[in-house]
Amino acid sequence: QRRGIPEGIFAAGKSAEQVVALVETALETTGRALVTRVTDRQVAALESALDDSFPNATVDRRSSTVHVRTPAFEPPSLDATIGIATGGTVDGPVADEAELVCEDAGATVDRVDDVGVAALDRILDQLDRLRDADVLVVCAGREGALPTVVAGLVDTPVIGVPVSSGYGFGSDGEAALAGMLQSCTVLSVVNVDAGFVAGSQAVLIARAIDDARD
Amino acid sequence: QRRGIPEGIFAAGKSAEQVVALVETALETTGRALVTRVTDRQVAALESALDDSFPNATVDRRSSTVHVRTPAFEPPSLDATIGIATGGTVDGPVADEAELVCEDAGATVDRVDDVGVAALDRILDQLDRLRDADVLVVCAGREGALPTVVAGLVDTPVIGVPVSSGYGFGSDGEAALAGMLQSCTVLSVVNVDAGFVAGSQAVLIARAIDDARD
Amino acid sequence: QRRGIPEGIFAAGKSAEQVVALVETALETTGRALVTRVTDRQVAALESALDDSFPNATVDRRSSTVHVRTPAFEPPSLDATIGIATGGTVDGPVADEAELVCEDAGATVDRVDDVGVAALDRILDQLDRLRDADVLVVCAGREGALPTVVAGLVDTPVIGVPVSSGYGFGSDGEAALAGMLQSCTVLSVVNVDAGFVAGSQAVLIARAIDDARD
Amino acid sequence: QRRGIPEGIFAAGKSAEQVVALVETALETTGRALVTRVTDRQVAALESALDDSFPNATVDRRSSTVHVRTPAFEPPSLDATIGIATGGTVDGPVADEAELVCEDAGATVDRVDDVGVAALDRILDQLDRLRDADVLVVCAGREGALPTVVAGLVDTPVIGVPVSSGYGFGSDGEAALAGMLQSCTVLSVVNVDAGFVAGSQAVLIARAIDDARD
Amino acid sequence: QRRGIPEGIFAAGKSAEQVVALVETALETTGRALVTRVTDRQVAALESALDDSFPNATVDRRSSTVHVRTPAFEPPSLDATIGIATGGTVDGPVADEAELVCEDAGATVDRVDDVGVAALDRILDQLDRLRDADVLVVCAGREGALPTVVAGLVDTPVIGVPVSSGYGFGSDGEAALAGMLQSCTVLSVVNVDAGFVAGSQAVLIARAIDDARD
Amino acid sequence: QRRGIPEGIFAAGKSAEQVVALVETALETTGRALVTRVTDRQVAALESALDDSFPNATVDRRSSTVHVRTPAFEPPSLDATIGIATGGTVDGPVADEAELVCEDAGATVDRVDDVGVAALDRILDQLDRLRDADVLVVCAGREGALPTVVAGLVDTPVIGVPVSSGYGFGSDGEAALAGMLQSCTVLSVVNVDAGFVAGSQAVLIARAIDDARD
Amino acid sequence: QRRGIPEGIFAAGKSAEQVVALVETALETTGRALVTRVTDRQVAALESALDDSFPNATVDRRSSTVHVRTPAFEPPSLDATIGIATGGTVDGPVADEAELVCEDAGATVDRVDDVGVAALDRILDQLDRLRDADVLVVCAGREGALPTVVAGLVDTPVIGVPVSSGYGFGSDGEAALAGMLQSCTVLSVVNVDAGFVAGSQAVLIARAIDDARD
Amino acid sequence: QRRGIPEGIFAAGKSAEQVVALVETALETTGRALVTRVTDRQVAALESALDDSFPNATVDRRSSTVHVRTPAFEPPSLDATIGIATGGTVDGPVADEAELVCEDAGATVDRVDDVGVAALDRILDQLDRLRDADVLVVCAGREGALPTVVAGLVDTPVIGVPVSSGYGFGSDGEAALAGMLQSCTVLSVVNVDAGFVAGSQAVLIARAIDDARD
Ligand SMILES: Nc1ncnc2c1ncn2[C@@H]1O[C@H](COP(=O)(O)O)[C@@H](O)[C@H]1O
Ligand SMILES: Nc1ncnc2c1ncn2[C@@H]1O[C@H](COP(=O)(O)O)[C@@H](O)[C@H]1O
Ligand SMILES: Nc1ncnc2c1ncn2[C@@H]1O[C@H](COP(=O)(O)O)[C@@H](O)[C@H]1O
Ligand SMILES: Nc1ncnc2c1ncn2[C@@H]1O[C@H](COP(=O)(O)O)[C@@H](O)[C@H]1O
Ligand SMILES: [Mg+2]
Ligand SMILES: [Mg+2]
Ligand SMILES: [Mg+2]
Ligand SMILES: [Mg+2]
Ligand SMILES: [Mg+2]
Ligand SMILES: [Mg+2]
Ligand SMILES: [Mg+2]
Ligand SMILES: [Mg+2]
Repeated sequence: QRRGIPEGIFAAGKSAEQVVALVETALETTGRALVTRVTDRQVAALESALDDSFPNATVDRRSSTVHVRTPAFEPPSLDATIGIATGGTVDGPVADEAELVCEDAGATVDRVDDVGVAALDRILDQLDRLRDADVLVVCAGREGALPTVVAGLVDTPVIGVPVSSGYGFGSDGEAALAGMLQSCTVLSVVNVDAGFVAGSQAVLIARAIDDARD
Repeated sequence: QRRGIPEGIFAAGKSAEQVVALVETALETTGRALVTRVTDRQVAALESALDDSFPNATVDRRSSTVHVRTPAFEPPSLDATIGIATGGTVDGPVADEAELVCEDAGATVDRVDDVGVAALDRILDQLDRLRDADVLVVCAGREGALPTVVAGLVDTPVIGVPVSSGYGFGSDGEAALAGMLQSCTVLSVVNVDAGFVAGSQAVLIARAIDDARD
Repeated sequence: QRRGIPEGIFAAGKSAEQVVALVETALETTGRALVTRVTDRQVAALESALDDSFPNATVDRRSSTVHVRTPAFEPPSLDATIGIATGGTVDGPVADEAELVCEDAGATVDRVDDVGVAALDRILDQLDRLRDADVLVVCAGREGALPTVVAGLVDTPVIGVPVSSGYGFGSDGEAALAGMLQSCTVLSVVNVDAGFVAGSQAVLIARAIDDARD
Repeated sequence: QRRGIPEGIFAAGKSAEQVVALVETALETTGRALVTRVTDRQVAALESALDDSFPNATVDRRSSTVHVRTPAFEPPSLDATIGIATGGTVDGPVADEAELVCEDAGATVDRVDDVGVAALDRILDQLDRLRDADVLVVCAGREGALPTVVAGLVDTPVIGVPVSSGYGFGSDGEAALAGMLQSCTVLSVVNVDAGFVAGSQAVLIARAIDDARD
Repeated sequence: QRRGIPEGIFAAGKSAEQVVALVETALETTGRALVTRVTDRQVAALESALDDSFPNATVDRRSSTVHVRTPAFEPPSLDATIGIATGGTVDGPVADEAELVCEDAGATVDRVDDVGVAALDRILDQLDRLRDADVLVVCAGREGALPTVVAGLVDTPVIGVPVSSGYGFGSDGEAALAGMLQSCTVLSVVNVDAGFVAGSQAVLIARAIDDARD
Repeated sequence: QRRGIPEGIFAAGKSAEQVVALVETALETTGRALVTRVTDRQVAALESALDDSFPNATVDRRSSTVHVRTPAFEPPSLDATIGIATGGTVDGPVADEAELVCEDAGATVDRVDDVGVAALDRILDQLDRLRDADVLVVCAGREGALPTVVAGLVDTPVIGVPVSSGYGFGSDGEAALAGMLQSCTVLSVVNVDAGFVAGSQAVLIARAIDDARD
Repeated sequence: QRRGIPEGIFAAGKSAEQVVALVETALETTGRALVTRVTDRQVAALESALDDSFPNATVDRRSSTVHVRTPAFEPPSLDATIGIATGGTVDGPVADEAELVCEDAGATVDRVDDVGVAALDRILDQLDRLRDADVLVVCAGREGALPTVVAGLVDTPVIGVPVSSGYGFGSDGEAALAGMLQSCTVLSVVNVDAGFVAGSQAVLIARAIDDARD
Repeated sequence: QRRGIPEGIFAAGKSAEQVVALVETALETTGRALVTRVTDRQVAALESALDDSFPNATVDRRSSTVHVRTPAFEPPSLDATIGIATGGTVDGPVADEAELVCEDAGATVDRVDDVGVAALDRILDQLDRLRDADVLVVCAGREGALPTVVAGLVDTPVIGVPVSSGYGFGSDGEAALAGMLQSCTVLSVVNVDAGFVAGSQAVLIARAIDDARD
């Protein structure tokens, strides 16, 4: 746990037993655990283990991210809103990673889904919500143009998250990453699929704003 | 000269003498010449040589593209409009290449400049013109999102042209090319800076439409 | 559904249940559905689900693409011919994607298979058919030279589709994509294996021609 | 001028005349201009032109970035501190770009130079300054480890800027960019040498904090 | 067996039978065998085969590396200490490869785990041990900054080993490799995950030191 | 001088003095010299130096390759024909490199220029000459399809030489190299612009044929 | 079947049924079939099918290549020797592909295994055999130096075949391919793992020599 | 100055004035300076400046590396031999960088030039010298096989230095770097052209040996 952000447990490539052990240690020491890139098998093992070890824990799973907390964990109250936008359903799991980090930190999350650039009117319809957030995490795959378009419409800091999708040249999020780094608007960026990092960076900014609000 | 499109003379890396000779041959055989990627030195040499050899020729230069024609050359009349759009000034020379090929073929060209995605209202303001063209050539550098955004707003076929601009990762048009190939709308694409090829492909489409109109 | 082209359902990486649900929604709203990159398991699930929900639907599968339509769907009648050519059997599934999009739009499709550049006489034998189409989609893997060779022989606009095949350096369609972008003839290109996009772009061009024919 | 950040004038590849014209337009409309990647020749032309057109303008040059302002321009007062750190002298010009954007916005800038990771004690000596900033821009070339090390020591949001330096594999800032995107701490990143973008993003964050402080 | 280093048996992609046969040959000719990149299935097959063929052999497995020796094998006595450091648990198996090569050669190994650069105090706490080694093997994934930071703190030769970890741009150890090659301190490097090679090179250096000590 | 092939002197990046010295040594020891990638300045220096040192030497320059021989040098007589084909003028200098190596070895060279794949009839017109050679060197830039097309029409061994030309993605000969390695016919390949290597390999094959003819 | 070389059947990614059908067609039309990249399952299906359809056929499998011939097939008699060398066991299957093509053509094959450059004496021991061949196919993975070293020792034409092996940077045969293209001796090269192509090219050369010998 | 190795002054991209200033500071504080990648202009400026400021300094230039020392500087006496080998003349300047670092440290340097792998006998002739060194720095460009071949013949630790040379695919030292990282012998490696780093690492090893010898 660094900077008040939970140490994420990166489940990909770990055995179910390893994941369970890491979660139990996290629950003991910090009252909650955040696990990214889980498989169904890992979640089943986790739920069954927690029945014994932490029967009162709440397990909140969204796509491949899981947030576990014991009743003892009180999320800090953070007076700031983090907007999270996605272009399409393929961006969902990456946005879910970010969302759970932000909720863990006590921020208000405003999630705006399915506003891909192929249909501009959907973005324009949600403009007020995008403008009202204190900081924005914008996830987009394929050509990854959404953060660029959004940043041209708001005054808020925007963190772009390239999502690995598509096929052929520039797939695996490479086109989206390159496009966000080349954006003709002002953005900062995290690595492909790094919803966890984007959410954490948004929390650090939100916390600075919350501190200033006090 | 293939398919009624002038054989472009690619001037980069050629000596001024070589360019002059190629232009003179083209004028003799086809009545006009199209030279891309010229330098000032090459153009000066060309103009001075033509004073002697083809004193009646017209030299039309736009950025680094030059179209020369003798009075004998009569551009075919083509009943079709090719729209050419650019995101910013850096895209101008590439669009100029396309424009001169289209004019050579007798098409009506509607050029819409400076409608980059960082300021969506500029695109929306020009929507009618973009929708009225029979085929669109859309040039964009940096993250290259413009063809994607335009293709989401029109029913016309769109040919995207990535432009080499920007710096760092994805520069030299690579981000733009990857983004256009990954576009979440329907596009076809030409190589980076290939305004000549995009213009020629637009002419082939325009000619098919013109034929059908007859 | 944008520009009269069915919203393709990209099945790779989706569960059978997700694919079924997306197809059913598409059938309800537009009367047909186009699913690309399907597995046998997904198709089986789809057929069994449709037995209940849309017992009168027709399921047309070609390689990994499936077109479903209810009796209510009437393909528009489009007075234009789209030629689709392939170099070898490995290019088949990509061409099938394109073909089903074109048929969905009501275009006449003329499919010319197995005319790879290793045996030029096969191409020359089919030249009349290639020249008679209004627009050509040419699919080729390995070194991807077929669209270049074809475009040197016809006056029709050619859309090149690189196909992921071969092994070693330049495999996964990268050699073919690079070769088509570098073509010494006039082509526009779509991403590797993007039969759906090429077919859709051909439809947009065919529709412009059909409009002009009216 | 978007989001209160001056539209940067990217001088590389432009003629001195073009740069002068763009600066004069910016001065007329917004009272100041920010020019990045200038050459000595461009600056000389600019200074001589301004003698005539804007004799009262102040020209502030740091490395290859120039900030010009007329007496009419009053920088907004921004109650927030932006820390800017560099690993070595090669990072200086990139940091200068960021610095001038931040000063233009009225932020307090705390510049901490020469704290490369090869000598950790220099970083540890400056820790208080790094911790006191509201947001940090950290520039580093070669292996680009500095933002990672700094982000492990502070609670502030850190924006990493990879700097093009070194030679051989991973040069031109590629190793630094990759390293920052892979960082085992929480960072967001801009493109290689994109001091202008990093400074602008820091301003957007600082402004949100300043708003909250009111 | 070259240069007194056991010929490693690279198990990845080999059948269990092939691995068993290669180990048995190695035991017969050199009294021990070192197998890298083993799977559980290969180890089970090996143990069961050795029950028959070399019932007195000792099998020492660490992560995916296995060292087998018969009682006849006497490791040379080497008067030198090789330090092996890792940033996190993901680096463990690569360090284990190096460790078993060093032990096979009779060197004293001092293993320092979990000193990643995200928490500098852990490195500083172990500084004496790092300084006391005669040569250091430092394994690190993600951004791979650990060898750079260590080399800035010691006078010992450091061999950096990039570890394939992380996701997105620069994953599979590429960021770490690039970062170590670009290091602003003095390092030499081996390929990604090449713990075997780094350990072997450390042995060659340690042996030269041991020779000099005699 | 290895394998009876002159040690090529690679002039790029060498001073005129260095080139002169290397040529003089080669003339002394082997009676001739082959210099590739020369500049005009280097050739002028060479000619002036040879006036003094080897006044009877013959200097044969083609594009950027120079062959010098003293009267003492008698090219071996080689009873074999090497065909050299090019797609366009840009391939000329690379073919010249190959040609001079072949002539140096005493082979009969049959040079077939300007048979690019964009106009198949030009290739078909020259088919007899291509079929009559004992071995073929085929140079092509851009998409590099020529060796593939030729190899589909002859029974002769074909060595493909990718030529660096074009712009954008796949330029610098990369598309051509990838395409030749992926060729759906049988080819072997040399590096981009490696006319010298292709010519030398053709000589080795021609010499084996000549030996067999004796 | 082009140029007297069997049309290879590339089995990877094909179903067992497809492979069987292609083999049966080849046997009917040419009397033999060559199948590369087979799996055990495909071979089992093939053998069982041939029991019925071609009970007298001979099936010769080496690693993942299978040569089938009916008694009717008489390999041409070719008076030439093709040497095939490998660096280590990992190169075996690629060399086997080449070997079966050469045997199919009736050439004498001299196979020299396990002469990797890490132990030069093994190469020097086999020098006479390498020098006696008419043409050499040299397969090598990892750093791929073997063809370079061999070509420095013989007068025979050498075709280098990079083999995909190793891990980390330059794996999958990329280091070997690059190294062979950069070789400081004279080589021509085929794609990574392209034993079939190298063997076929060797046959074309051997046939030219055989023709000359008549 | 870290670890007793002079802080190298990297002259590329610095003005002559900057280089002079850095050298004078180094001479004042450490008695000597090492400057790499110098141009003739920088050296001239340096020599003329030193005439005034340090008239007694010795300037030792080898290719693009310069070592300056005042009479006050006494190189430490180091009882160890560092062998430095090169494949050809193109490797010379990189080896010179390494050599001057080693001499600065007081090591005995044994330089073995021109032993490229294309002529193995030259390597075998020098084998005793290569075996007698305590540590070896081996520089090679093109395919970079020399360190692999040498490491197969000696028991000494070998540090490979890829040299940027050649053209086409794998040029700029990339083939050599990849080949050394993939070497089938035991090597550690530095970045392309990093003679300074290799020399410094050799000094650290030599110093450890020297310490042990005391
Ligand atoms: N999805 C994720 N993306 C980036 N970092 C993560 C993610 N999940 C966990 N982490 C971080 O990765 C590190 C875990 O590394 P490990 O020791 O391999 O478990 C911790 O610093 C986590 O905070
Ligand atoms: N800017 C351009 N982009 C693409 N192709 C071009 C361009 N200019 C000329 N060409 C074409 O490139 C070929 C000229 O090649 P070359 O023989 O090198 O002059 C002709 O087919 C031209 O039509
Ligand atoms: N993990 C490893 N990394 C690098 N080289 C290895 C490794 N394991 C074994 N080797 C070496 O790889 C070679 C074995 O190659 P092979 O013939 O494929 O078994 C031998 O030289 C081994 O010493
Ligand atoms: N291992 C191989 N490497 C290269 N080409 C092959 C190989 N096996 C078969 N081929 C060739 O690949 C083509 C078969 O392509 P396909 O139509 O995909 O079966 C034919 O021209 C074969 O001769
Ligand atoms: Mg998107
Ligand atoms: Mg743009
Ligand atoms: Mg093909
Ligand atoms: Mg740094
Ligand atoms: Mg690490
Ligand atoms: Mg060509
Ligand atoms: Mg090998
Ligand atoms: Mg070399």
